[in-house]
Amino acid sequence: MSLIEDARRGVVTEEMRIVAAAEGVTEDFVRRGVAEGHIVIPVSPYRRVKICGIGEGLRTKVNASIGTSTDMVDVDMEVEKVRQAERAGADTLMELSTGGDFLEIRRRVVEATTLSVGSVPLYQAFIEAARKRGAVVHMEPDDLFRITAEQAKLGTNFMAIHTGINYETMKRLQNQGRHGGLVSRGGAFMTAWMLHNEKENPLYSEFDYLLEILKEHEVTLSFGNGMRAGAVHDATDRAQVQELLINAELADKAHEQGVQTIIEGPGHIPVDEIQTNVVLQKRVTNRRPFYMLGPLVTDIAPGYDDRVAAIGAALSSSYGADFICYVTPAEHLALPTPEEVYEGVMSSRIAAHVGDMIKLKKRDADLEMGHARRDLDWERQFAVAMNPERARAIRDERMPADTDGCTMCGDYCALKIVGRHFNF
Amino acid sequence: MSLIEDARRGVVTEEMRIVAAAEGVTEDFVRRGVAEGHIVIPVSPYRRVKICGIGEGLRTKVNASIGTSTDMVDVDMEVEKVRQAERAGADTLMELSTGGDFLEIRRRVVEATTLSVGSVPLYQAFIEAARKRGAVVHMEPDDLFRITAEQAKLGTNFMAIHTGINYETMKRLQNQGRHGGLVSRGGAFMTAWMLHNEKENPLYSEFDYLLEILKEHEVTLSFGNGMRAGAVHDATDRAQVQELLINAELADKAHEQGVQTIIEGPGHIPVDEIQTNVVLQKRVTNRRPFYMLGPLVTDIAPGYDDRVAAIGAALSSSYGADFICYVTPAEHLALPTPEEVYEGVMSSRIAAHVGDMIKLKKRDADLEMGHARRDLDWERQFAVAMNPERARAIRDERMPADTDGCTMCGDYCALKIVGRHFNF
Repeated sequence: MSLIEDARRGVVTEEMRIVAAAEGVTEDFVRRGVAEGHIVIPVSPYRRVKICGIGEGLRTKVNASIGTSTDMVDVDMEVEKVRQAERAGADTLMELSTGGDFLEIRRRVVEATTLSVGSVPLYQAFIEAARKRGAVVHMEPDDLFRITAEQAKLGTNFMAIHTGINYETMKRLQNQGRHGGLVSRGGAFMTAWMLHNEKENPLYSEFDYLLEILKEHEVTLSFGNGMRAGAVHDATDRAQVQELLINAELADKAHEQGVQTIIEGPGHIPVDEIQTNVVLQKRVTNRRPFYMLGPLVTDIAPGYDDRVAAIGAALSSSYGADFICYVTPAEHLALPTPEEVYEGVMSSRIAAHVGDMIKLKKRDADLEMGHARRDLDWERQFAVAMNPERARAIRDERMPADTDGCTMCGDYCALKIVGRHFNF
Repeated sequence: MSLIEDARRGVVTEEMRIVAAAEGVTEDFVRRGVAEGHIVIPVSPYRRVKICGIGEGLRTKVNASIGTSTDMVDVDMEVEKVRQAERAGADTLMELSTGGDFLEIRRRVVEATTLSVGSVPLYQAFIEAARKRGAVVHMEPDDLFRITAEQAKLGTNFMAIHTGINYETMKRLQNQGRHGGLVSRGGAFMTAWMLHNEKENPLYSEFDYLLEILKEHEVTLSFGNGMRAGAVHDATDRAQVQELLINAELADKAHEQGVQTIIEGPGHIPVDEIQTNVVLQKRVTNRRPFYMLGPLVTDIAPGYDDRVAAIGAALSSSYGADFICYVTPAEHLALPTPEEVYEGVMSSRIAAHVGDMIKLKKRDADLEMGHARRDLDWERQFAVAMNPERARAIRDERMPADTDGCTMCGDYCALKIVGRHFNF
């Protein structure tokens, strides 16, 4: 019995109760959200996780993607990334390794965390094909489905699956061209496979089989965005919208069959197209949870892409995106270090909160901070800060002579000068 | 003869020519902008500066504020802040010291830079009153005007002057109350002075005299925002809007008399009120250049306020703000270090560019980056990056085995996989 089926029958499960309590909404709100597909709660029959609801009316969640590449395989470092992501307050993790021993890495990561963990099964399928048969285009669809089930049994809670890249989507891409090419690895693997083998994407053509597997193992299906723009000039293009339409259609079917669904979105989007992307996604998918990669709002600030994505994510979440994949300062340049993972999560959490201030009118902590600042109550300020440790470190390093104020104004603290005259 | 008077008579000055060339607009566009008060070009008869236009149709500019406090007086460090601000690409500086020898600091700063430098003359006037007469409330208006002229003669190009805090504004503040109090030092000094002395703000009551001084020394008048919100819950409140109305009225008068004018704005504003602030300012001031402090879009991320302000500044500049005052990661906690000055400028520059992508459709560099990434042309990527040095450092530290790609994807670079099949 899946969560959706329980919800439809009017049953409030333990997971729904936990989400309701954590979010300050009613249990029935969560139950209806799950039943209608506006909310997902990633679970797994194989692993107990910290329950985390994602979707309409809930706090915007932040995902931290970690994982090796062929250039950097260090499982201990991956475990350290898990630790830093959790320390920074990530809500979920995605384990996206493309180098090393997939099984070992996934086991170590899953052992190291109680957060929901996501994966992209086709990475393993394509890369094992390259290892065994010399090229990713020799991937066998049976292996892809087998690996999907195997990863589920390791306790994977949600999977990004690239179902929306089919002949239609590819036609849009070929007819239109692109400035930034194709930057999704899943999208690249699958289009290369389709072109080489002259076959339809098996995740699309055998979608029913895929659903059987996901349903059996209670995996939440996150529809991958293989056509996402890798440059702001490709944002919201026909290929991306075509894929969204296909995924939206498939998501209805998945939901109908009791599989929880999330829709993934771009990517690189200039500020004036973000609202359009969110509204379009919500409309054509019947308000399914929207999982956005930032978006990045400019291409020219490599080294600072966590800040760039925070601008985009603040907007996307304010307009209704539900789930934000973090971006680290190393994006577009290198695989991130654990420190960069930490920074990326912090930037995304700030953005998600900024969005929630609008979307959910969630401003209590801000009000508390305003009062604590007015009252020069530093302990209260640290208590309400998103990162008390860092805030305290900056102040402590430069402690003022008069410890009521701070070194910015020294003796001439605006609040103290006026405090004598006003009683706010 | 002021720039405005030249512009009105149809004369295109050297300054206007420089701005037109730098911005890729016509000389007549700049001339008309100056004549109508939509553009300012801060100058000084006492110092040659790197000419920088601010206003409608021009690239969004970034200011870095530096200066001592009574807790941290180290002139060499201030000079190092100048260096870091310039290295990070700041367009202007404000020297806002409130501790130490004002004259020496200002001289050293002005010597160290060719950028336009701004100041807030009332700081010196109030603090000298405190030093000489025991309290800021003993400030003598004559001293304030004298100091304004003296600072102008040191080569100050623009001055933030708190003219809009008068009995009307104060009434709004007293009648409404505030969550975050009054956080502008200028606003705090002046309201304290007015309440103690039971006198109108001399910058308001003797505005004509102030204008004479500014006109004589060709100082650009930046109308200070003494009532700016220090908490998102105080954003766009009646006190702030009242001050804006007063300043807008005075700005018409100043412009009429040939004094260039900028209007300063908040501060702390939630994402959904930023557009309102920009539209309101542009409307009531007859489209004068808008100088915004970020804005900060949440209060709860001290230690990260450069990122928080970048979210706000990306939006404010996209809606039409012309000039962004940076915020450093130390904001609300301590006076910034030179490193934090650098980070603050970078965050603001990113935001300003993101705004210009919308406001001016300025996206050529982004297009170039998209192409360079698609082509895996790393040197071109670094050349177009806002901070080539940092981007290169991240990549070089983790150089991939295959130097075409990067360590994010290692052997499985999406662009390389697809590059074999598509010819974008």
